[in-house]
Amino acid sequence: MAIKKPSLPKGTRDFGPLQMARRNYIFDIIKDTFKLFGFQQLETPAMENLSTLTGKYGDEGDQLLFKILNSGDYLKDVSPQDLESGAVATLSKVSEKGLRYDLTVPFARYVVMNRNEVTYPFKRYQIQPVWRADRPQRGRYREFYQCDADVVGTDSLVCELEILLMIKRVFSKLGLKDYSIKLNNRKVLAGLAEVIGVPGRESELCVAIDKLDKIGWGKVQEELVSRGFDPKDIEKLQPIIDLKGSNQEKLSFLKDFLSSSEVGIKGIEELQSVLDLLASYGSDETYVDFDVVLARGLSYYTGAIFEVKVNKVSIGSVSGGGRYDNLTGVFGLEGVSGVGFSFGVDRIYDVLEELDLFPKDQLEGTKVLVTYFDEEGVSYGLRVLAALRNSGVESELYPDLAKIKKQFTYADKKQIPYVIVLGSEEINSNKVSLKDLKTGEQTTLSIEEAIQAVKS
Amino acid sequence: MAIKKPSLPKGTRDFGPLQMARRNYIFDIIKDTFKLFGFQQLETPAMENLSTLTGKYGDEGDQLLFKILNSGDYLKDVSPQDLESGAVATLSKVSEKGLRYDLTVPFARYVVMNRNEVTYPFKRYQIQPVWRADRPQRGRYREFYQCDADVVGTDSLVCELEILLMIKRVFSKLGLKDYSIKLNNRKVLAGLAEVIGVPGRESELCVAIDKLDKIGWGKVQEELVSRGFDPKDIEKLQPIIDLKGSNQEKLSFLKDFLSSSEVGIKGIEELQSVLDLLASYGSDETYVDFDVVLARGLSYYTGAIFEVKVNKVSIGSVSGGGRYDNLTGVFGLEGVSGVGFSFGVDRIYDVLEELDLFPKDQLEGTKVLVTYFDEEGVSYGLRVLAALRNSGVESELYPDLAKIKKQFTYADKKQIPYVIVLGSEEINSNKVSLKDLKTGEQTTLSIEEAIQAVKS
Repeated sequence: MAIKKPSLPKGTRDFGPLQMARRNYIFDIIKDTFKLFGFQQLETPAMENLSTLTGKYGDEGDQLLFKILNSGDYLKDVSPQDLESGAVATLSKVSEKGLRYDLTVPFARYVVMNRNEVTYPFKRYQIQPVWRADRPQRGRYREFYQCDADVVGTDSLVCELEILLMIKRVFSKLGLKDYSIKLNNRKVLAGLAEVIGVPGRESELCVAIDKLDKIGWGKVQEELVSRGFDPKDIEKLQPIIDLKGSNQEKLSFLKDFLSSSEVGIKGIEELQSVLDLLASYGSDETYVDFDVVLARGLSYYTGAIFEVKVNKVSIGSVSGGGRYDNLTGVFGLEGVSGVGFSFGVDRIYDVLEELDLFPKDQLEGTKVLVTYFDEEGVSYGLRVLAALRNSGVESELYPDLAKIKKQFTYADKKQIPYVIVLGSEEINSNKVSLKDLKTGEQTTLSIEEAIQAVKS
Repeated sequence: MAIKKPSLPKGTRDFGPLQMARRNYIFDIIKDTFKLFGFQQLETPAMENLSTLTGKYGDEGDQLLFKILNSGDYLKDVSPQDLESGAVATLSKVSEKGLRYDLTVPFARYVVMNRNEVTYPFKRYQIQPVWRADRPQRGRYREFYQCDADVVGTDSLVCELEILLMIKRVFSKLGLKDYSIKLNNRKVLAGLAEVIGVPGRESELCVAIDKLDKIGWGKVQEELVSRGFDPKDIEKLQPIIDLKGSNQEKLSFLKDFLSSSEVGIKGIEELQSVLDLLASYGSDETYVDFDVVLARGLSYYTGAIFEVKVNKVSIGSVSGGGRYDNLTGVFGLEGVSGVGFSFGVDRIYDVLEELDLFPKDQLEGTKVLVTYFDEEGVSYGLRVLAALRNSGVESELYPDLAKIKKQFTYADKKQIPYVIVLGSEEINSNKVSLKDLKTGEQTTLSIEEAIQAVKS
């Protein structure tokens, strides 16, 4: 019987040694930063009860959840009538679990279930894959990593400051120089709605304004009209759309523009405070860009809104987040305010690749391959290998008796920078020949000298 | 409407900050070791096609696979007649993907799909969760991590040596001293079957002998009889069951006992070679215990068989593996021999907890909390915080203006070892008060001195 070639489910990927080394390079910088700022790691299960997941991501999100079939005779409660009423009506009879769709809802669930054990303010980070039954396309996968940091249990704007600082640190460590952290505040958007005469309708306003970058002001106006906004009210937004200048210039203008709106002024004050805290920390406003039309579509933000864009690359936003007043309300725990953000690791990976910013040097892996010609070489090679590893040098012995050329090809393919060659001369004199594969230079050294050479 | 308290699916767990720090402590030691030995990391998707997974783990395994419901109208191909024929018959109509059951089958699939890109011998490690719809009980979860290392594409016994060395290194780094690495060879078991007169029946023999530890020799004999073995043949195993002594003594005895079996002698030679390689490397046989009845039930091992047991704890095997001749044959790629093993991280966690071997010092997390009394303290505190972090010291500023007692309670709960206190005196003199929470000692220092103090 012919065996069918195995394949991957669409929208999923394997990560081989090179991709893993590169991903780990990114993850390590992010983790280091989270830890430096006092965030603690959380991991939650891949599977959550559907009762935890459904209703949290809108109708579309519910459809994009991967559902797990109940174990055993999963059809036992399904009747022929059920077949007619269709998949949605029958779902609860065949499935009670789904795969994590994001890291925010599981985090909220964790906080609610552990409300008495958690130390507030709770600074948690979480780096885990999530799954969405989206139509796969370039840059959009059905399994991808999220990388979240949130603080819950405090209203302090120091948290907003820390998000700016963490983003700056991560991007600096990654060598990314041309980017901007767009910053806004939901209260400013609420204020705008008030002063143009549509108080309380900032959500609708946001949904349309959010598309400004993509479709332009003309189309946004059309959309607003079609949503029932009065063109005269919309026109009042014109100075906002035209707004340019430094953060301070924009804040001054808005202070004036929003002077009749209490909530708007509150938003401006919060933004000003965050920038003041940044100055107190000794970090400047470089990369931080107050963007009064930044909305991020998501209606649950109540204060700060962040979005990071790398300039001059094909990929858009690589990080985003904001403050929310009621993370856990949906699970019955009120009054837990928080602020958080997420790094899009897959997108950062693509950006670093596009800009050729991954370190040229081998990222992780074997430093020395020990090669030899015969059985005698194996015994001596094992001794050399032990010495290398005891000194912390990642090293391998080619496991099979093979032509030296084959052993060198292995080193080459695995990008191993040094090869130790053990011939009878080396063995008899208790030495090694160390070859630097980059320069081609080969020297005969004692084992200890060779270890020093590869470590330096 | 009352909101239902959220809960976790049974058999799954959250890992909060303490558990994560402890798990990372174990993972880091294992990863370090894998890398030191030249293994490269692979990650595969959580979801695999059911065609990849089914038929690889036996009937029971197939039932324990978590299946993912097809997206959209998953019931559209199910007819009322299907409902009668039951869940198993209908499965292919509602589900085509399942969750990873182990890391071996996805690895085999990866090798087959990337056969031309992979560098052989391919040394890969993989640390990812797997899912099994097992009945949850103490120590058995539906989601748990596996931690595998395999080498494929070589028959060299150097690989077996490296497995012994990696286990020894990991256990030594973890502070585990009372354990044994049981070592056997499938060929020895095949030889035993030959010399007692039941050639080719070593698989059945293994299944029964595997239970020796649990049910004793008497019951094993009964089981063998019930499987159709002749009591006279079984009796010939008696000297094997009674076998004691050093590895060399046991090997000598077996060399004699198996002298009429070619495959048996081959097995003994392989074991001898592995021990010789161990000596060449300069590592002794401490912890390595040739166990002629070790079978590990799994019938796909063709050479070495490993199992690690920690003594004097309630948990049994914490690591195991072996050599297999045909990892990828099931996917149509013949002749890929390999050897691998797996660390049971959840069990190692439990062992370290039972033996109180986790480091007492804070494992990871904030080193310094900056506390203050008023707004002036915030500005100055941010400067101190920036200096600490720029020196790589994990540190936090308490984000809210709060009573100093509350800030100290936070440090205490988060096990932060140092607190910096900033009163008007410190601020005016450009100093900090550094308190060591373990000793209670408090000293007034310059910012730089404080950084040195907490780093030393």
